[in-house]
Amino acid sequence: MAYNIGIDLGGTNIAVGVVDEQGNILSQTSTPTLAARPFAELVKDMARCITEVLTQANLEEKDIESVGIGIPGVADQKLGKVIFCTNLGWHDIPLREELQKYFNKPVYIDNDATVAGLAESYAGISKGCQSSVFLTLGTGVGAGITINGKPWSGAHGVGSELGHMTLVVDGVPCTCGNDGCVERYCSATAIIRMARQACLGYPESLIMKLAGNDPDKIDARIVIDAAKAGDNTAVQVFNRFSKYLAITVNNITAFLDPEMIVLGGGVSKAGQFLLDNVRAQLPRYLMYKNLPSPKLELARLGNEAGIIGAAMLGR
Amino acid sequence: MAYNIGIDLGGTNIAVGVVDEQGNILSQTSTPTLAARPFAELVKDMARCITEVLTQANLEEKDIESVGIGIPGVADQKLGKVIFCTNLGWHDIPLREELQKYFNKPVYIDNDATVAGLAESYAGISKGCQSSVFLTLGTGVGAGITINGKPWSGAHGVGSELGHMTLVVDGVPCTCGNDGCVERYCSATAIIRMARQACLGYPESLIMKLAGNDPDKIDARIVIDAAKAGDNTAVQVFNRFSKYLAITVNNITAFLDPEMIVLGGGVSKAGQFLLDNVRAQLPRYLMYKNLPSPKLELARLGNEAGIIGAAMLGR
Repeated sequence: MAYNIGIDLGGTNIAVGVVDEQGNILSQTSTPTLAARPFAELVKDMARCITEVLTQANLEEKDIESVGIGIPGVADQKLGKVIFCTNLGWHDIPLREELQKYFNKPVYIDNDATVAGLAESYAGISKGCQSSVFLTLGTGVGAGITINGKPWSGAHGVGSELGHMTLVVDGVPCTCGNDGCVERYCSATAIIRMARQACLGYPESLIMKLAGNDPDKIDARIVIDAAKAGDNTAVQVFNRFSKYLAITVNNITAFLDPEMIVLGGGVSKAGQFLLDNVRAQLPRYLMYKNLPSPKLELARLGNEAGIIGAAMLGR
Repeated sequence: MAYNIGIDLGGTNIAVGVVDEQGNILSQTSTPTLAARPFAELVKDMARCITEVLTQANLEEKDIESVGIGIPGVADQKLGKVIFCTNLGWHDIPLREELQKYFNKPVYIDNDATVAGLAESYAGISKGCQSSVFLTLGTGVGAGITINGKPWSGAHGVGSELGHMTLVVDGVPCTCGNDGCVERYCSATAIIRMARQACLGYPESLIMKLAGNDPDKIDARIVIDAAKAGDNTAVQVFNRFSKYLAITVNNITAFLDPEMIVLGGGVSKAGQFLLDNVRAQLPRYLMYKNLPSPKLELARLGNEAGIIGAAMLGR
């Protein structure tokens, strides 16, 4: 039996786990990221966590094949470097080299959404699919692409950024400097923006009631709950969001046509309600309405996808 | 030396050639498609052309490894069938089976834009690139994707239709039934539409002069010539077209990040003028402005890409 270490490096916490060949987490721990400190100290904490999870799992260093790390930024997979992570303030960080000072194992690095997509392909909903596109619908929109069973981040590592494809030319300005990005229409942030706008005209909406009549307290969950309850304003906002998402799903189909498109991240907690809504709008946009096309499904692994997928980078 | 037959099946003509390992066409011929007749007769003509080009090249059937066919539609690569070709009125046509009645060789079928992209990757501008996206900017917009050195048409054969990704939500209605497709903004047809609209307000434009003051005679070449000559209206139309194309190029980068993006088709005859214009607009849209990104280049092979790429399907 071979085991791999998976590390999910986030802006707040570093989660570390031992993962077996089937994608099961045998033991896990976490430690605060404390991003402001020198990166070498952060890597030292990673190493400490690895030792901890190995002990927990009754394993030794020799049982481990590799260490994989999912990072919230752009990786140079070949050199094992972090090109940059905006959240961590990192630029050109030799993460592999530093971690290998503690463990003389192969170290693999990739983007966190790419890694989560890989986890779903390995042990989740898209298991067995040779190609898939995984979307994390959260504050922003991240994506993980799997092609021929392997993660794909592009020839220069700058691909798989579907959240920053232009969906609306000259649309809503994006934090990336561009306008009208997918992220501005298909994220939790987008639902909130659309709901606040809608509630200006319909202050009697259930959305406002659930938010205690404070527009600043509107979040995606409230809008979805109100839509599920049949509130007109919320239904309209959610349908509009679902339309943008259906167009994005169709754009993925027209471009890559993967076996499966997987919806993950916070918004995907809307579950079957989200899936039904997007599926209902899809046929309108599909070019080949009578031919097979990618399955659209919900992610299965939740938060553990980060550790599992990172561990799978070395497989 | 191994040789392959490449067949470029178009709505008007069938072009057939013998291609060597380096992607050189040794001999070629063509015959009218006459699409309305039974497909078996058309395949009989293909077989006749194969015999003809073999004789021309002083080769025999035994020297041939495979036959490849680029079709203007959707192919089932595994079964060697045409799923459908709108231009030819074909649905579910067993092209491989029929052609093998004449030649007992492996027969490969794929979409014509996919095939042209493969040709550029094999013997053209993107030679040596492991990944590339080729765009044909003509009446519509076709695309050929190469991943890991192999053509990619998706898991269900309905991918690589970048011309029918939505570029403008609720935009100009498209022939495919959808609205705002890339094809409606990045094709020769789009240049013509935009120019006609612009000339309503600026009838003194050089565009109108070159078109003999008949808006129906405006074509993409006239608009490009007028823009090259510095005509204000034409420059504005061409810049607008280039903006849409730059956004599309950036969307390809954000999604797949191939090594190279290649511009082919009729509009690419604008050459360096087109390339300079799009390249000038690209940095505005790129997410990672300081990281390497796909090279943007002009196609090199022209009309022969169809035969060369089809021949390469079997390699």
